[in-house]
Amino acid sequence: MTSRLTSHSDLVAASAIDVRAAIRDGSYTGHTAGLAAGKLQCNLAILPERFALDFLRFCQRNPKPCPIVGVGDTGKPNLPTLGHDIDIRTDVSKYRVFRNGALSEEVTDIADVWADDLVTVALGCSFTFENALLREGIPVRHIEKGLNVPMYRTNIDLVPAGRFGGQMVVTMRPVPEAQVAQAHDISRRFPQAHGAPIATGDPAQIGISDLSQPDWGDAVEVRNGEVPVYWACGVTPQNVLLDAGLPICITHSPGHMLIADVAEDAETTILKTEKTTN
Amino acid sequence: MTSRLTSHSDLVAASAIDVRAAIRDGSYTGHTAGLAAGKLQCNLAILPERFALDFLRFCQRNPKPCPIVGVGDTGKPNLPTLGHDIDIRTDVSKYRVFRNGALSEEVTDIADVWADDLVTVALGCSFTFENALLREGIPVRHIEKGLNVPMYRTNIDLVPAGRFGGQMVVTMRPVPEAQVAQAHDISRRFPQAHGAPIATGDPAQIGISDLSQPDWGDAVEVRNGEVPVYWACGVTPQNVLLDAGLPICITHSPGHMLIADVAEDAETTILKTEKTTN
Repeated sequence: MTSRLTSHSDLVAASAIDVRAAIRDGSYTGHTAGLAAGKLQCNLAILPERFALDFLRFCQRNPKPCPIVGVGDTGKPNLPTLGHDIDIRTDVSKYRVFRNGALSEEVTDIADVWADDLVTVALGCSFTFENALLREGIPVRHIEKGLNVPMYRTNIDLVPAGRFGGQMVVTMRPVPEAQVAQAHDISRRFPQAHGAPIATGDPAQIGISDLSQPDWGDAVEVRNGEVPVYWACGVTPQNVLLDAGLPICITHSPGHMLIADVAEDAETTILKTEKTTN
Repeated sequence: MTSRLTSHSDLVAASAIDVRAAIRDGSYTGHTAGLAAGKLQCNLAILPERFALDFLRFCQRNPKPCPIVGVGDTGKPNLPTLGHDIDIRTDVSKYRVFRNGALSEEVTDIADVWADDLVTVALGCSFTFENALLREGIPVRHIEKGLNVPMYRTNIDLVPAGRFGGQMVVTMRPVPEAQVAQAHDISRRFPQAHGAPIATGDPAQIGISDLSQPDWGDAVEVRNGEVPVYWACGVTPQNVLLDAGLPICITHSPGHMLIADVAEDAETTILKTEKTTN
């Protein structure tokens, strides 16, 4: 059965299950910003089991760039704590496969790459707190302009674990000076989505030399009366995985996130079942 | 050097480092409730590396009873993200060593039990939110009475991982009916310490037959106008570890927690260093 939901606008009000179905059957192949409104969206990291313990330790030690929201069983492509019948081999609209530390291919499913020793780790994503900022009246420039959020390498050392380490990547959003404290308090409520900003103001303090030259994404204007505010970014674990030079690892493609059935403002990222209270 | 801080009252206002020093050198062997006021206290689980990935998955899937606040490197007895110079072999005042699913010994250090394949996992503890409840004017009966909190087995299934699974253990605190919502909101701010209550009211709804007969700790009175409120409990992972029948695992003894240098109300449980911003 092919889903009849194929456009971005069709899918904004759709359930997470329907969005995943449209992605699974190939009806929808675009980015996921705004889809299944209110549901948690996730960064994806899939890696061999023998590296998984160190990677989970790495994420635990760097919870702001790497908030763990779900971990699959070894070799199992489902994530029952994040959603009903998720099949991680097909339910993301675009994947990147890395081999020995280099991008190997960008694909729309990973059924032929999947292996019995792979472990899926889902990590929180900034869409969650951006939605909260917008709901509470704080403008988000790159969304207003239809651009990608600007992302920058910093000089902030990560806490290493095994072969995983390096420096943090951040996103930057200009915030009116009078709303900086409010933006801090709003995003702090979402530890599953990078939490409070890690810095505010002068980019040089965290090793960014020129805000007009982001390392990824698009530059946005910082207007008079606005302050650049920096949040930990989910590109951090992708970079760290790349640098680790694993024989294989798989991530989502930027903007093409896994959509969970969990509400983005739920207390935990664990789906309630009839027998579980969380 | 032997610490001159030896009594519980000496240690309430001491730093976490000084409390750990007094425990390390044997000057202090008691429980840790109230010590190093304002610092995070932790449940402890030490287990062989080959079970650690599944145990971390188990904790991730059950974040309310098992909030992970620190994970050590394999074979390394320190936990640098939780505190300066922690030596987990000596810095807890009493340990329980389990072998093949049975209590083997209760000891004041584990230097001779430590092995190169052991992984330390530190989990959050209810002291954190109890302190917040007290600060905000919500009475905590068992503390008023100098008793242990009452703990109960429930029929709430945990989400399993590998050989780890079972049912949740909860604590119960009677709360004046008018303050139940406030108690919920306060404790929800501490996901690193069991978060919001998992149930309120009738104990039968979660499989508790008689509040006057706790499975661990001491019964406390629920007075007219009060409602029993149930929180996920750190005895849950201890029970789960015991049931898993590992060849060896080590926990703290009840009430004898690891005291971290991290503030109990910090945004993350990762100690800030000069080079890390979290």
